[in-house]
Amino acid sequence: MTAYRSIEWRQGVLRLLDQRLLPQQTEYLDFIHYQEVAIAIQDMVIRGAPAIGAAAAYGLALAAIHSDAKDLSTLRGELETAAGILQAARPTAVNLVWAIKRVFDRLSDPKLVTIPMLQEATISEANKIAEEDIWVCKQIGLNALPFVPPVATVIHHCNTGSLATVDYGTALGIIRTAHEHGRKIEVLVDETRPRLQGARLTAWELSQLGIPHTVIVDGASGHFMRTRHIDFCVVGCDRVAANGDTANKIGTYNLAIVAHAHGVPFYVAAPTSTIDMTQENGDTIPIEERPSAEVEMIGDHQITPTGVRVANPAFDVTPAKFITAIITEKGVAFPPFSQSLAEIMKGSSPKNQSSHPG
Amino acid sequence: MTAYRSIEWRQGVLRLLDQRLLPQQTEYLDFIHYQEVAIAIQDMVIRGAPAIGAAAAYGLALAAIHSDAKDLSTLRGELETAAGILQAARPTAVNLVWAIKRVFDRLSDPKLVTIPMLQEATISEANKIAEEDIWVCKQIGLNALPFVPPVATVIHHCNTGSLATVDYGTALGIIRTAHEHGRKIEVLVDETRPRLQGARLTAWELSQLGIPHTVIVDGASGHFMRTRHIDFCVVGCDRVAANGDTANKIGTYNLAIVAHAHGVPFYVAAPTSTIDMTQENGDTIPIEERPSAEVEMIGDHQITPTGVRVANPAFDVTPAKFITAIITEKGVAFPPFSQSLAEIMKGSSPKNQSSHPG
Repeated sequence: MTAYRSIEWRQGVLRLLDQRLLPQQTEYLDFIHYQEVAIAIQDMVIRGAPAIGAAAAYGLALAAIHSDAKDLSTLRGELETAAGILQAARPTAVNLVWAIKRVFDRLSDPKLVTIPMLQEATISEANKIAEEDIWVCKQIGLNALPFVPPVATVIHHCNTGSLATVDYGTALGIIRTAHEHGRKIEVLVDETRPRLQGARLTAWELSQLGIPHTVIVDGASGHFMRTRHIDFCVVGCDRVAANGDTANKIGTYNLAIVAHAHGVPFYVAAPTSTIDMTQENGDTIPIEERPSAEVEMIGDHQITPTGVRVANPAFDVTPAKFITAIITEKGVAFPPFSQSLAEIMKGSSPKNQSSHPG
Repeated sequence: MTAYRSIEWRQGVLRLLDQRLLPQQTEYLDFIHYQEVAIAIQDMVIRGAPAIGAAAAYGLALAAIHSDAKDLSTLRGELETAAGILQAARPTAVNLVWAIKRVFDRLSDPKLVTIPMLQEATISEANKIAEEDIWVCKQIGLNALPFVPPVATVIHHCNTGSLATVDYGTALGIIRTAHEHGRKIEVLVDETRPRLQGARLTAWELSQLGIPHTVIVDGASGHFMRTRHIDFCVVGCDRVAANGDTANKIGTYNLAIVAHAHGVPFYVAAPTSTIDMTQENGDTIPIEERPSAEVEMIGDHQITPTGVRVANPAFDVTPAKFITAIITEKGVAFPPFSQSLAEIMKGSSPKNQSSHPG
């Protein structure tokens, strides 16, 4: 485990590492009100699909334990309200919806007949989501291990490490597992405009882990694929549709196309909590448009001329045809993903599939 | 003409607009010593292949007129030294070499037998290069006009406008000509990391010209090609090889691949001064590696963790197969470029070619 945890539950207080200030400052914020957790998710104090899922579950735990409700149905009503607010914080990652649904599934247990029981169940389910997330990440890392050659140079986009999850990481977890298993892995780190999660967070995490890495601008990935050997690209995801179309941080789609043009395998690390079988394909995944200031300003430094128009979609959708494999904690899905993801989501591992990464 | 000129010759003084400070400050720097012009080119006070070509020619003019040489051969020796220093300022754009060669071709005239005659010829050739550049840009704009539909949305990378040239611009000149000819043209402006020439300079120029535009991060181009209609991409270039392979600002190659994947035409605006027939293909074009601070810092704001490794190639090479057409002042070259560029460089326009942009 790394020295810093993105998210911690401390006896009724949710503690989040403020990722907006990294790597220059490591500052923790404590939360008692779920409304402030929703704002923190929106403002990206915490980000990364698995991490915001866990944060939302703990947001419900805060709502439950700090409630003044005198009866069960009032408390349940308050939790419904909290769920609505937390879920609306960010639209693209399905993990918010998934985590909240998991808590409510648990709360539907008819044996929960007192307020303390309901409170206890909420906390317990949030803890379970958080603990499972670490196991899920490690399992994804192990499932990906066969795809990592003994010496590998890879390109990674955004941040998908300990900070983006409860701990360990998804795509960065794959890199970390490979490193821990003796692979000589080197990472070209897409800086990931506009919020620079790669340059700020991924570089910081890789430094702590002692994994060799070099930061590049997002537009340089093709140059490096053309001029040196890149073994694969690996990214996380915010929502995977039933056909394998994958929403992830803006810039992922460009990277996938460029990898495809060079015959470089493109892997998506996807906890099953991020797979949304209700979306037939990626066209219906909502894409969050974030404030233009994220592009216009860096720190206090204004880049663009005053008044210029900016478009700032936070995510893009990579069509399944550009994806070599989707690596989940329950197994690896190969094309055709409609079939392989369905099998994984049924719980059966599609290990015996014949298709292989290119 | 726009209100600001990137480069002006004022009776023995070279005046450059300091593009590092735009759009927040418009400040001019005056130069008397050619050595300082070389540093200004290196530090990107002035940038853009055509603009640095003209600046180098004026650098020679400064060397000539501020020389203390008492005889012709001493002066010629000093000019050779100056040429070496100016030419070494930036390695990728061929325009430095081209402009210096043009001045020396002029100086080879045996009729230049006095120091004042040599000085006069140097200034006169530099002025000619500068004046011709404006004509060249306008002609490129006119030659591209048939490719611009009445209503067009285009993606542009880096800055190729008045600031990158003596005036008017190459790829932005195409956009400007289209606008002036009544095309309803809208520009998605790649911000162009690391130096943000798009967000800072192109947005500023398009604002002054009244051309609708929206700044996007470089990684978002695929998202927009997938979700709305893009008519074409258009970029400038720093060096075009004989087979059409094109060196241009880092990120150009990714944009070209992404355009290709979407069937979006990809046009390169290339003054013939940027076409280097001595390079068989793009593999031998030298790619400048610039200081890592360009990626690590924005203004005074440090992005990356201290000590992180950064790779910062300033340019990439787009193989000819991703280019729909190369638009020069002497005509439009279509694939196969080995043939069409050779015809253009011989002076004969390849207008009657059968191939057409995709």
